[in-house]
Amino acid sequence: MDERLQKQLDFSLEIDKEKNITRQTHLSGHGRAENDAEHAWHMAIMAYFLKEYANEPVDIERVMIMCLVHDLVEIDAGDTYAYDDEGLKTQKEREEKARERIFGMLPDDQCEELNALFEEFEANETPESRFAHTMDNLQPLILNNSNDGGDWVRHGVNATHVLGRQRKSADGSEFLYKNVIEPIVKNHIAKGHIKDE
Amino acid sequence: MDERLQKQLDFSLEIDKEKNITRQTHLSGHGRAENDAEHAWHMAIMAYFLKEYANEPVDIERVMIMCLVHDLVEIDAGDTYAYDDEGLKTQKEREEKARERIFGMLPDDQCEELNALFEEFEANETPESRFAHTMDNLQPLILNNSNDGGDWVRHGVNATHVLGRQRKSADGSEFLYKNVIEPIVKNHIAKGHIKDE
Repeated sequence: MDERLQKQLDFSLEIDKEKNITRQTHLSGHGRAENDAEHAWHMAIMAYFLKEYANEPVDIERVMIMCLVHDLVEIDAGDTYAYDDEGLKTQKEREEKARERIFGMLPDDQCEELNALFEEFEANETPESRFAHTMDNLQPLILNNSNDGGDWVRHGVNATHVLGRQRKSADGSEFLYKNVIEPIVKNHIAKGHIKDE
Repeated sequence: MDERLQKQLDFSLEIDKEKNITRQTHLSGHGRAENDAEHAWHMAIMAYFLKEYANEPVDIERVMIMCLVHDLVEIDAGDTYAYDDEGLKTQKEREEKARERIFGMLPDDQCEELNALFEEFEANETPESRFAHTMDNLQPLILNNSNDGGDWVRHGVNATHVLGRQRKSADGSEFLYKNVIEPIVKNHIAKGHIKDE
């Protein structure tokens, strides 16, 4: 088999491992912990059907592929919970190594392309990456909301933490922040699921 | 909240249930059974990085969204194994009802859009739907290949069945059929993982 195709197939098999990386979010119906692949799939579909609410017009192909691949590094680096301050300190270094190994399995041109997608997502400066981040925040929020805020309660997170993270969602969609995210968070603060400090 | 947004959010939460629909395919490393959401995520990424092998140039945005949504009906209709002849008889009727309920949760324009995507996928007549079908076949094939053909052995499927299904993959990509799919299937026939009758 030619080398290019072999590399693409090896990468295709390797990413299967993302299905074993569990997150702190739980599936609706008080279900089991979600994994990264499920989260990415869910985000990409939500992006497609909610794209009219992006602050600026977005290239939805780019948003979708960014959603789909944004957690691949966690195959090696593991999931870092958004409110895990210790884990966040070493996250960047762990993820750099993971990129080298996993993205490096692809042919050079596609490895570069994937690195560019990942860096664009991380930099959060384009309309596409901002909207992808809004989905990255909104998707677990609607699950957690459906489960009476159980994931917040379990971790004892506070309002400063949650609002600090979620406010960035407004950079991708003011509309979704004002009409969905902020009301949900405030409701769970009022109910005591998120600590109001 | 306005009705359009509420419908989009209800749909977004509903599709979470696809993560509970398990398939006959098992994750690499002789892992657990895969679910539909994971399968769709995997297919969409593979489509993106293998698109150069499509028989005709494809609109990859359309291929990806088709991959992501093609199994949503299974939330109600369940997964029908490709080699389950009894289940295949009632599959269409079960899936029609599921479309009415699940796609019908979206605002009318998006419900129509999703129906069009699903019908295009099912009809398998455009370059995009053909390539999406190739991914629908190739993705479980590479997992099953990595697991010594365990899913074929478990179900006792025969070569006529597997080749009959997999030959359609050539409609989306002759190259992937000839260079990946056919050699893998033949190898597992030779090893006795697929019955040669």
